[in-house]
Amino acid sequence: MIVVMRNGAPRESVAAVVERVKELGFQAHLSEGEERTIIGIIGDKRPQNEHVFRLMEDVEKVVHILRPFKLASRDFHPLDTVVPINGHSIGGNQVIVMAGPCAVESREQFLETAYAVKEAGAHILRGGVFKPRTSPYSFQGLGEPGLEMLAEVKERTGLAIISEVMAPEQVPLMAQCADILQVGTRNMQNYNLLHALGEAGKPVLLKRGMMSTMEELLMSAEYILSHGNYRVMLCERGIRTFETYTRNTLDLSAVPVLKQATHLPVVVDPSHATGNWEWVEPLSRASIAAGADGLLIEVHPHPDKALSDGTQSLRPERFAELIQRARAVAEAVGRSL
Amino acid sequence: MIVVMRNGAPRESVAAVVERVKELGFQAHLSEGEERTIIGIIGDKRPQNEHVFRLMEDVEKVVHILRPFKLASRDFHPLDTVVPINGHSIGGNQVIVMAGPCAVESREQFLETAYAVKEAGAHILRGGVFKPRTSPYSFQGLGEPGLEMLAEVKERTGLAIISEVMAPEQVPLMAQCADILQVGTRNMQNYNLLHALGEAGKPVLLKRGMMSTMEELLMSAEYILSHGNYRVMLCERGIRTFETYTRNTLDLSAVPVLKQATHLPVVVDPSHATGNWEWVEPLSRASIAAGADGLLIEVHPHPDKALSDGTQSLRPERFAELIQRARAVAEAVGRSL
Amino acid sequence: MIVVMRNGAPRESVAAVVERVKELGFQAHLSEGEERTIIGIIGDKRPQNEHVFRLMEDVEKVVHILRPFKLASRDFHPLDTVVPINGHSIGGNQVIVMAGPCAVESREQFLETAYAVKEAGAHILRGGVFKPRTSPYSFQGLGEPGLEMLAEVKERTGLAIISEVMAPEQVPLMAQCADILQVGTRNMQNYNLLHALGEAGKPVLLKRGMMSTMEELLMSAEYILSHGNYRVMLCERGIRTFETYTRNTLDLSAVPVLKQATHLPVVVDPSHATGNWEWVEPLSRASIAAGADGLLIEVHPHPDKALSDGTQSLRPERFAELIQRARAVAEAVGRSL
Amino acid sequence: MIVVMRNGAPRESVAAVVERVKELGFQAHLSEGEERTIIGIIGDKRPQNEHVFRLMEDVEKVVHILRPFKLASRDFHPLDTVVPINGHSIGGNQVIVMAGPCAVESREQFLETAYAVKEAGAHILRGGVFKPRTSPYSFQGLGEPGLEMLAEVKERTGLAIISEVMAPEQVPLMAQCADILQVGTRNMQNYNLLHALGEAGKPVLLKRGMMSTMEELLMSAEYILSHGNYRVMLCERGIRTFETYTRNTLDLSAVPVLKQATHLPVVVDPSHATGNWEWVEPLSRASIAAGADGLLIEVHPHPDKALSDGTQSLRPERFAELIQRARAVAEAVGRSL
Repeated sequence: MIVVMRNGAPRESVAAVVERVKELGFQAHLSEGEERTIIGIIGDKRPQNEHVFRLMEDVEKVVHILRPFKLASRDFHPLDTVVPINGHSIGGNQVIVMAGPCAVESREQFLETAYAVKEAGAHILRGGVFKPRTSPYSFQGLGEPGLEMLAEVKERTGLAIISEVMAPEQVPLMAQCADILQVGTRNMQNYNLLHALGEAGKPVLLKRGMMSTMEELLMSAEYILSHGNYRVMLCERGIRTFETYTRNTLDLSAVPVLKQATHLPVVVDPSHATGNWEWVEPLSRASIAAGADGLLIEVHPHPDKALSDGTQSLRPERFAELIQRARAVAEAVGRSL
Repeated sequence: MIVVMRNGAPRESVAAVVERVKELGFQAHLSEGEERTIIGIIGDKRPQNEHVFRLMEDVEKVVHILRPFKLASRDFHPLDTVVPINGHSIGGNQVIVMAGPCAVESREQFLETAYAVKEAGAHILRGGVFKPRTSPYSFQGLGEPGLEMLAEVKERTGLAIISEVMAPEQVPLMAQCADILQVGTRNMQNYNLLHALGEAGKPVLLKRGMMSTMEELLMSAEYILSHGNYRVMLCERGIRTFETYTRNTLDLSAVPVLKQATHLPVVVDPSHATGNWEWVEPLSRASIAAGADGLLIEVHPHPDKALSDGTQSLRPERFAELIQRARAVAEAVGRSL
Repeated sequence: MIVVMRNGAPRESVAAVVERVKELGFQAHLSEGEERTIIGIIGDKRPQNEHVFRLMEDVEKVVHILRPFKLASRDFHPLDTVVPINGHSIGGNQVIVMAGPCAVESREQFLETAYAVKEAGAHILRGGVFKPRTSPYSFQGLGEPGLEMLAEVKERTGLAIISEVMAPEQVPLMAQCADILQVGTRNMQNYNLLHALGEAGKPVLLKRGMMSTMEELLMSAEYILSHGNYRVMLCERGIRTFETYTRNTLDLSAVPVLKQATHLPVVVDPSHATGNWEWVEPLSRASIAAGADGLLIEVHPHPDKALSDGTQSLRPERFAELIQRARAVAEAVGRSL
Repeated sequence: MIVVMRNGAPRESVAAVVERVKELGFQAHLSEGEERTIIGIIGDKRPQNEHVFRLMEDVEKVVHILRPFKLASRDFHPLDTVVPINGHSIGGNQVIVMAGPCAVESREQFLETAYAVKEAGAHILRGGVFKPRTSPYSFQGLGEPGLEMLAEVKERTGLAIISEVMAPEQVPLMAQCADILQVGTRNMQNYNLLHALGEAGKPVLLKRGMMSTMEELLMSAEYILSHGNYRVMLCERGIRTFETYTRNTLDLSAVPVLKQATHLPVVVDPSHATGNWEWVEPLSRASIAAGADGLLIEVHPHPDKALSDGTQSLRPERFAELIQRARAVAEAVGRSL
């Protein structure tokens, strides 16, 4: 952390900052420029609150030098984290595809989709029973009764299951039947939920908030990691911008940027990002070309009858084509799928 | 809802949409333009899922005509909702000021601030014990032990209390000692929490998500209203934009726009929006001039020693000045403070 | 400027940066922390290109300490700049109101509006003859023939005139008949135009780009100032965000932030920001309460017949009411109008 | 266009809108729903100004049904536009790579880069002589003296040249020596410039404004097309969002969305979008996988000595690797490079 003094700050103001730095157990390193005096704060811990200095007389601003996440950073853990799921490895050479309906609607619909995505080549089955919906009048998911269906379909198809949790009390229930617990975009900063997931003992897929920075995404991962759970995967799913032709703006730069900043696997969800099935395939290919470790894709046997997100769901036959084309790109960049 | 067909859509595709509209229990109203055929969907309920039509052959897009909120709209309830709190009325002629520290840090700090803001003219005392923080390493609030302090300070000062809840299980606890339950910006779409607040029997102040549209804010209010709680206040606290000189961008247009769209009171929090105490006073005045029903302001007796948000906290003496100047503006627009 | 080295950067990499700093004529100030070594760059000029250092071995990032604008900053010119226009002063105690139609449509329409806004209390008359329009099929303004009307109406009403220029070749023409040359939001970074305005010898009102930060606005002002024209006024007119209920999001925080950062007057245009005449009055009042030096408001005698921007134009009688109410707020904050 | 009446609008208000529609030469199509009456406006032209209706008594809103661009739309021109340049075709099966320095700095630097990118496999050479820079104190390009260098290097290397124009008066000069005239992101809505390019008789590469929607990009293309120049290419180069880890946010969804909406070729510039050479290669591959017709990439023989944008420039040897890897992806999606 660096404290920048105002132009012409008197000697006493500078001395006061230096004094405060020492009081707090750090060393102060003074540097007098032509226009500004700056004071570096040095120590083996990091000062928590910049306003301690920011509010002192003649301080112009406080500049952070270090990124605030630790356990999630490559500095801390240089090698890629690989999360093993049911015989597959997320974060390794293979690109992993998770597919299925937005919401589990019935035993039949979920089973039909499960077999279809398995046949097409998906590695993991997605399906929500707790659904966050903007309107209180929309279908909210089957809730706890849906958990049984997750368990049954998992057993019958042999596919690992990823499913969303929305509240701390759902975590232990879901941990019994799902292989990956998903945090949705609106809950990325639901800290009570993150805390519970840190103690869940199950892999977590953490979706980026639709208006969260990559740094905030990594800080939310840090919550889970710092509570003891190291099996965390990040998911880029589109951010909110001024553009309205797509539902959100898929931020594919996040793939190489996150792969550089962190050791955690990075998955992309092109279905929610675009909101339109027609654009899911080209962006699935692009995600792999950019270096993604996995894809999360919505598939529904009858999109026009879906209870949620039908517009962005692929029919199984189109999903099968997507897998073929995505595999060609994976191979072109030296990976398998 | 209106279905727009593609240019040159064949007669059969149009007929299929009309058929589907009728199957779902609505009437179809056909309108053939020079470039496009459009189909209006008419009925006494609203079709829930646009993708039912969006995915049909030759459909170009689906356009919503009605806003999706009902109980929150002025159409439904033309008169202003007024929420009485401890002898004050929020949403009436008087501008209500809620002030206090971001976080309750100790019995002494909270009591000292409470007396100071009361003397300066604040109507309601704010103070958080459950604190959502971006970093797991930051101070997270006193938690349940802090509830007792809320109750004690309330009794000693006679001030009503507003305090944040972060999870459904905190709602009944907080309802026992606070007069207003606050939903923070990161929890605006925490639907489990909103559901619990709908059943809490206490007034709620719902902060706009920093990434949320006004329509989404009203839909989140709709969750609370539709679960039986009509005492809901909205709070504009700044939205996230590309600008970095301020912490967030205070969207003051939201005040007149929301007052037109809904009957619920609208409060403004200039402290979180700007992130800098120097800009809180001018924006407090501007909020009142724009028509706000109340202000939510951070005050701390020793901002440089605050455990959170010190940079944006006012010292009590500056807060007292703010009240004086804000009162002059309130009177200039025909209100009291 | 500060160069931050990567964690564990070898001694040679640090030495190489220090060497380069000296080669470029600056002094290097080394500071070795627990996790990072940082190098301050000191000198009486500022290094122009951060990539010179950013691309060196083991450099993690380069941090700017100083804001990049000089002539526009309060450091350089601590007192408020006041721009005298036709007997009025912009940037002084009085709040100045500039009003009139978006576009000059005819001699009659412009003259009628001019008399109406003068009677209502406006100080300066606005009216565009060069109109930037998103669609090539929309009315583009009267062009050069409209200049004569500006001159005539100015003479008959005695009002000073503000009007937009879109290209360098329009600057000398417009400088002959207008008192203030306006730069529109889409041209804020049209550097050829800014250069021409720096040499125009006339006051300039520079509108913030709807996609521009305050820092970029000040850098564009710097272009005009550095080419010799010191009579520059800044105008906040709404920025682009994800919100769609308003045309743009009026960033009223920009008023106190800019007034702190620069000595230049700050004007607000609530008409373009909201895009709806119903919200112009409350936001005009709010602008004054926030500290604006002036308002820019669209008025049209027959908004429903306007050739552009009718939705946000006030009828003259509503504008007269606005002036009354805005004056009350101006007086409440110690100013006149 | 559809006019939506307020809930409970009286019969006379509806009749007045219908009357106005007819006066303007359109047909009105009335549709009475349970909650709202809506009026469709039908005709062979499009009403230009929504406020004509928006401002009438009891009108709630006006909804646009058609997209506002015509010549740029696939409806108007279903087949892909292919732009031939110097023996290459942009918009056909081959992915075209345009590469070179941000700015031409000297004859030697430009010639060295030209030979290097040619050898690596680039098809077209980029190099700016007119440079839009945020700061008036930064290098602004060589200006007109640089045009000669463009001509010389073009002749010696046989490469076609793309270079930026910033003002109408530069268009005829640049048209003499460059093969493609580039419009920069800050000039996307410089309508005087677009008009001049419509009459330039040379292919144009139109960069998306960093805070412009795809619809506005297409409307700016419409300006050029409607003034007679059909050889227009669109370029996605990153949009401005709240994310700060990258310079801008590359919107790769724009590739499939634009390819569906328009017949014009779509090129991607990953250098400006990311602002960091390390991320250019993965996003170049992703662009091709998403369906881009071309890439625009910054290459500099000595990035740390570049006078602008060095941080995002690739060294020639890294660019050669990029070409190899990009070619593998192009082939995986059925294209050549």
